[in-house]
Parts: sequence; C-alpha cells; structure tokens
Amino acid sequence: MSIQKIHHINFVVKELDAAIRTYSALLGGRHFTKDELSARGALTARTRLGEQWIVLVQPTDPDSVPGRHLKAHGEGFFLMSLGVDDMESSLSDLAIAGLNSTSDKDRKGLLNWWVRDLDMDQTFGAQIQLCEER
Amino acid sequence: MSIQKIHHINFVVKELDAAIRTYSALLGGRHFTKDELSARGALTARTRLGEQWIVLVQPTDPDSVPGRHLKAHGEGFFLMSLGVDDMESSLSDLAIAGLNSTSDKDRKGLLNWWVRDLDMDQTFGAQIQLCEER
Repeated sequence: MSIQKIHHINFVVKELDAAIRTYSALLGGRHFTKDELSARGALTARTRLGEQWIVLVQPTDPDSVPGRHLKAHGEGFFLMSLGVDDMESSLSDLAIAGLNSTSDKDRKGLLNWWVRDLDMDQTFGAQIQLCEER
Repeated sequence: MSIQKIHHINFVVKELDAAIRTYSALLGGRHFTKDELSARGALTARTRLGEQWIVLVQPTDPDSVPGRHLKAHGEGFFLMSLGVDDMESSLSDLAIAGLNSTSDKDRKGLLNWWVRDLDMDQTFGAQIQLCEER
C-alpha cells in the first residue's frame, strides 16, 4: 500500500486575500503562493507546512465543485489529499476494499499534482482524494 | 514561531467501528487504537500516518463540542491540530496577530497532548487548535 502521508489539506474560503493574511499569521508569517486553477473554477494559495501543503481555495464559479461545497457547507475544511507513489496500484488496492474513485481519469491539480477523488458517501462525509506527484 | 507541522486531523463520525473499518482499509490496513475521552464526551480511534495522527471521534454526548459539531455539520472533518513546542509562546505570537484562543487553560487531549482551540470565527470556518506534547 503506497499511502504514506497526508499530501495536502484544502480549505474553502470566500475571500482569498483575507484568508491568506490570517493563515499566514497563524503559521508564523509563511508566504503563500497564489495560482489560478481554472479547470476547477477556483483561485488558490498554498504554503508548505512540514511535509504537507496547506491550500486555500476561493471558488470563482459557484457551480464548480469548490463553489458547491462553499454553498452547501460554508467556509472551512474542504478536502484531505493523501500522497501515493503509484495511483493505479493504490486505486486497485482501494477497490478491493470497496472504496471507489468518482472518476476513471486523474485530474490535474496544482504544480505536478495528479489527483483522484474518492466517493464521499464511502468516507463518512469527508472528501478524501489520492495525489501522485509526477 | 514554533508551529512546525500538522499534529493531527480529526474526523467526527456517528459509528466509530464502522468508520475504523473504512479508514483502516483506506490507509492500507493500519491499526487504530481506541480510547475514551470522557471529558470531551467522545469515543476516539487514532492511527499514525507519517508524522501526523488521524483521529476518528464519535460523540457520546450530543451536547459535547463534537456532538454539537456533528449535529450542525454532519460527519466529516472536525478539526486540524497544529504541533507547537511551546504553547504559551505560540499563543502570545498569535495574540499579537489578533488570533485568540477560546480558553485561558490548556485542555488535556489523547495521550500526552495538551491543546488550545482557536476562535473559529477568526479562522474562516475551520476549527484549528494548537497541540503541545508534554
């Protein structure tokens, strides 16, 4: 099994710059790098904390996945991404355990991250995804 | 600033044993250690993932903090705990930045964890806490 660590944690927010100011102060003045993720309908800001990334996500499209999450749940935790070495092998292992991805193709995230979301109905309300850097 | 890493991530669930089975499968068969945290009105199960802990929390008291979170938000992400070396020094730094704890005393968590919750109204809907092991 190749899940070895939490890769990143995403928070959905309404106003990215305001959230950056607060989270930067919270994390001791760390710099956040902003990036648009147009395929996801969102603006993002990320910083590294130890071996993980903290990612703030502001939806630009209310009908995007982050936009719908914001509308349904308000601001706060959005998803936990788990780092894997080999996406296909990890998904095969999970399928054997009855855990399924919601798509049959990887989605390009930030940087060199390729992700696959798991079915939230199977993970007790938490959006969890796998992430492979390549 | 002494925040160096994510210490643990908590998920609130309705049925601990069912959640343990799923999260254990998700994380490649990892063993979860169960513990009661009666002061918090909850049963818990934890496992280590890299440098972090994943903690599942089942409220036993609907009026406890986890119980109220479950009622208000449903199952899913509950809180992110940030590891600090020196609680008082970290809280002083955060106070200067306008971020405040909701109490003036540390609360005993699992194991040797001592925690202090930050005001959720200041952290864009996410419950964030500091955690010192001592």
